[in-house]
Amino acid sequence: MEPKENGNQPGRVIEGPTNPMVTPLLNDLYQFTMAYAYWKAGKQNERSVFDLYFRKNPFGGEYTVFAGLEECVKFLANFKLTHQEIDYVRDSLPGSEEAFCDYLKGLDCSDVEVYAIPEGSVVFPKVPLMRVEGPVGVVQLLETPFLNLVNFASLVATNAARHRFVAGKSKSLLEFGARRAQGPDGAISASKYCYLGGFDATSNVAAGKLFGIPLRGTHSHAFVSSFMSTDEIVDKVLQSADGETTCDDFISLVQTWLTKIQYSPSLSGFFSETNQSELAAFISYALAFPKAFLALVDTYDVMKSGIPNFCAVALALNDLGYKALGIRLDSGDLAYLSTEARNFFCAVERELKVPGFGKMIVTASNDLNEETIDALNKQGHEVDAFGIGTYLVTCYAQAALGCVFKLVEINNQPRIKLSEDVTKVSIPCKKRSYRLYGKEGYPLVDIMTGENEPPPKVGERLLCRHPFNESKRAYVVPQRVEELLKCFWRGSADEAREELPPLKEIRDRCIKQLENMRPDHMRRLNPTPYKVSVSAKLYDFIHFLWLNEAPVGELQ
Amino acid sequence: MEPKENGNQPGRVIEGPTNPMVTPLLNDLYQFTMAYAYWKAGKQNERSVFDLYFRKNPFGGEYTVFAGLEECVKFLANFKLTHQEIDYVRDSLPGSEEAFCDYLKGLDCSDVEVYAIPEGSVVFPKVPLMRVEGPVGVVQLLETPFLNLVNFASLVATNAARHRFVAGKSKSLLEFGARRAQGPDGAISASKYCYLGGFDATSNVAAGKLFGIPLRGTHSHAFVSSFMSTDEIVDKVLQSADGETTCDDFISLVQTWLTKIQYSPSLSGFFSETNQSELAAFISYALAFPKAFLALVDTYDVMKSGIPNFCAVALALNDLGYKALGIRLDSGDLAYLSTEARNFFCAVERELKVPGFGKMIVTASNDLNEETIDALNKQGHEVDAFGIGTYLVTCYAQAALGCVFKLVEINNQPRIKLSEDVTKVSIPCKKRSYRLYGKEGYPLVDIMTGENEPPPKVGERLLCRHPFNESKRAYVVPQRVEELLKCFWRGSADEAREELPPLKEIRDRCIKQLENMRPDHMRRLNPTPYKVSVSAKLYDFIHFLWLNEAPVGELQ
Repeated sequence: MEPKENGNQPGRVIEGPTNPMVTPLLNDLYQFTMAYAYWKAGKQNERSVFDLYFRKNPFGGEYTVFAGLEECVKFLANFKLTHQEIDYVRDSLPGSEEAFCDYLKGLDCSDVEVYAIPEGSVVFPKVPLMRVEGPVGVVQLLETPFLNLVNFASLVATNAARHRFVAGKSKSLLEFGARRAQGPDGAISASKYCYLGGFDATSNVAAGKLFGIPLRGTHSHAFVSSFMSTDEIVDKVLQSADGETTCDDFISLVQTWLTKIQYSPSLSGFFSETNQSELAAFISYALAFPKAFLALVDTYDVMKSGIPNFCAVALALNDLGYKALGIRLDSGDLAYLSTEARNFFCAVERELKVPGFGKMIVTASNDLNEETIDALNKQGHEVDAFGIGTYLVTCYAQAALGCVFKLVEINNQPRIKLSEDVTKVSIPCKKRSYRLYGKEGYPLVDIMTGENEPPPKVGERLLCRHPFNESKRAYVVPQRVEELLKCFWRGSADEAREELPPLKEIRDRCIKQLENMRPDHMRRLNPTPYKVSVSAKLYDFIHFLWLNEAPVGELQ
Repeated sequence: MEPKENGNQPGRVIEGPTNPMVTPLLNDLYQFTMAYAYWKAGKQNERSVFDLYFRKNPFGGEYTVFAGLEECVKFLANFKLTHQEIDYVRDSLPGSEEAFCDYLKGLDCSDVEVYAIPEGSVVFPKVPLMRVEGPVGVVQLLETPFLNLVNFASLVATNAARHRFVAGKSKSLLEFGARRAQGPDGAISASKYCYLGGFDATSNVAAGKLFGIPLRGTHSHAFVSSFMSTDEIVDKVLQSADGETTCDDFISLVQTWLTKIQYSPSLSGFFSETNQSELAAFISYALAFPKAFLALVDTYDVMKSGIPNFCAVALALNDLGYKALGIRLDSGDLAYLSTEARNFFCAVERELKVPGFGKMIVTASNDLNEETIDALNKQGHEVDAFGIGTYLVTCYAQAALGCVFKLVEINNQPRIKLSEDVTKVSIPCKKRSYRLYGKEGYPLVDIMTGENEPPPKVGERLLCRHPFNESKRAYVVPQRVEELLKCFWRGSADEAREELPPLKEIRDRCIKQLENMRPDHMRRLNPTPYKVSVSAKLYDFIHFLWLNEAPVGELQ
């Protein structure tokens, strides 16, 4: 999608969505049938207000990270149907009038306003993440794309944040999910939003290029088994790190070290003969990347082959002034193997007098998730970096977040969506929302009010009510009041609005907000729900409207 | 990605992947570090053979539908790194030599061959879905994109097939997942592959346009609650279906019918006053789509409001020669409500003498999945069409399929990947595979052989061995032998190869193959595993190689 110039002004341009497949046709057909029916009824320009929110935090937790906003703004800033798209829509609506095509032709988001919580914020159920206002005909066409762009983004960012929480701040977290993700941009979105949620790097080259995310990756088992023996290696020459000396036979140097390790008192007995294809692969890899040698050590046997082979190559590199980075473990008992590997490295440091050798980075991969990292922590391990794929990027533990997009007002008339299930009743009215902070600096409660109610004031006692449970209410004296919804779109890129910050800044906001939550909301086991409330006035209005709309039953 | 012309010939062109984000950079960094290390070692052109396969059927079942092949072929036919991409890769590989960029510049798939089971086939664990041969430097760069394109495609196609199985052939299955899918092409891929797996239609307009999938969709709750009363409807005129008469006040006609229903002997007592915003919405929708009136009836109360309102509008349409389509239920007890709705429609048919009225289509949605459809079947229901979203498109029950891509031969040397976990040991050698059919026409067993073994023959007894369990073996006398791997790419679009059939044909293959499976493999509860085997010769070779590679332990 080409970015649209804003009229004749020198106007600012907001680029289109990352994925060019995100067009107004990424939509449910019923948004178009409704647009047609609104248009037929002359209602298409009625001013509507929709809230985008979710009903339940994912993964059994009590918090969610909001993500996907930037892509939504990029989408609506460039919202325009092409002739070809219009023709297709017309053909899909049986019996539709030709004049509807003219309506679609003129459709854009110049009458739409979007208020949203900044991307990367910690958010809670029922509180609108976005409030979208505008002509009902066009806002209806934003529902499916916005939900699509927000649902997975927020889900996977939350999943990443949860993995960070269990791994701890000091560990490196690497996203390795591209091959198992739900399609090509399931991969690219996951890389973006895992970084946003607190990961350090990704293996996904496309995501690295698109979003500036640091990349990580070394080699696979196939690389190891593609070698038969060191005889295959033709060019054995390696210059020293400072460029001053040249080792003419790096293979011999490695083999000398391998023998030294083998006959070193506290290292002997670990292994007899190491695998030669593995050794050849490690040497080749080191010759290619002497400054960044990190080896996958579990192709044959970690302790009998992988670790001794790695150490021999690392020690040979060390002779030439290079520091090897470390190893990756991709199978087996990671707690046991990481500890054994660490012990071996420390023994090499001691026995062979190589300072710092014990600090080799141990990276672990192989179907890791929140649970397995938690289990590793409980067992004790020596892993420095976790490479996480499938469970992270597909959000295996809960593969969908249920964001919804509900009409709360039309033509200044508040609307409520009823349901037999009280958790599905929508909170009517165009609203404002605030986060109230307590004395210790933690957020205490989010409160929604009618649009024209006076905002909560610092130091003033305020009644916060559960929206649907009359017995749940509490007085709060906020020490800080933060209005949650900010304007991100007001008809054009030139109008006053919040800037779209770079991804790194969104990530920083996310990490800071997560750290600033009261710990009991964040813990994995039985976390305390964060409170979400409405003002007394809004409470009364919700229940007035509810009684008004609900049919009175008749017992028969 | 622009499709590449094939040299100077009039050459055939294979279009690029559906999603333009599918480029060679949709890759794990380690594929490029390995490519560099292969190149540094002078190994980049060694002829390698990789198998793409999965280890376990998803969803607790005993079958999988293979999908994603067409996108893989489109990808490799257009495989070419741009200058900008090459620069980015170089910058991502610390210390890499400039000459590597020239290597990357020249890289394409003109030396690659791909053999695959045709897309839409029913497939089983361990049997290669694709065998990819070519220079190891380039084939390594196909691993991540191929896995990404096959994993989700096959998973969601299988999920769709399972939903079809439980719903039965006579029901309409509609995919409604765009809003909850894992990102934009999580949605578009899901729509494509659910159709392939046996769904009838999608709500996703982009997928409809891209792939020619039939579209479905009517209106949402927001449409209903956007109306306040019938006073809003300005244009009440509706022409009859044959264009010969005009009803000047369609609203009055509807209201007359509503009264008739209300005072009709067996229909009275059901309801007193129906919701007026709902009635207004239905009338508006009918005025927009008189030929395709299908109403969502659960915004307020299905039996007290939605159904009577729907019937009144449908009867008014009937007066003018239009046939209403039916209703959609999106909440509540779908078994009960669909049955009540059907009873009401039949009563209307009887009482008000409207032939066919009892046959209204009842569509059900609201978080449906295999389990809930199975439960509905057991309870008894009157649903004709299921609209399925979240659980289908995100594959909620199991969000990932674990396809892998393993080196099985390099330089004519067979390679095996060992593992402590026997299910993870790879089957070495460049192989052929066959499906053997029994007397009743059902597939009996898949068998893999070495590339140069004579193929199984119809009527000849053959020993089929479990690849890893020596005690599991059986003699088979096949009545039909089908070679599974066909050539889909041999260096260029012009070389002899299988055509890429249209989606509709792939879907037909899938449906036919599913129907041709022995029922006990397909049942939801305790299905019988389908047998996957190797020839006696391949069995011996696997175990020879395994013993050769595995280190001998030492008990201490």
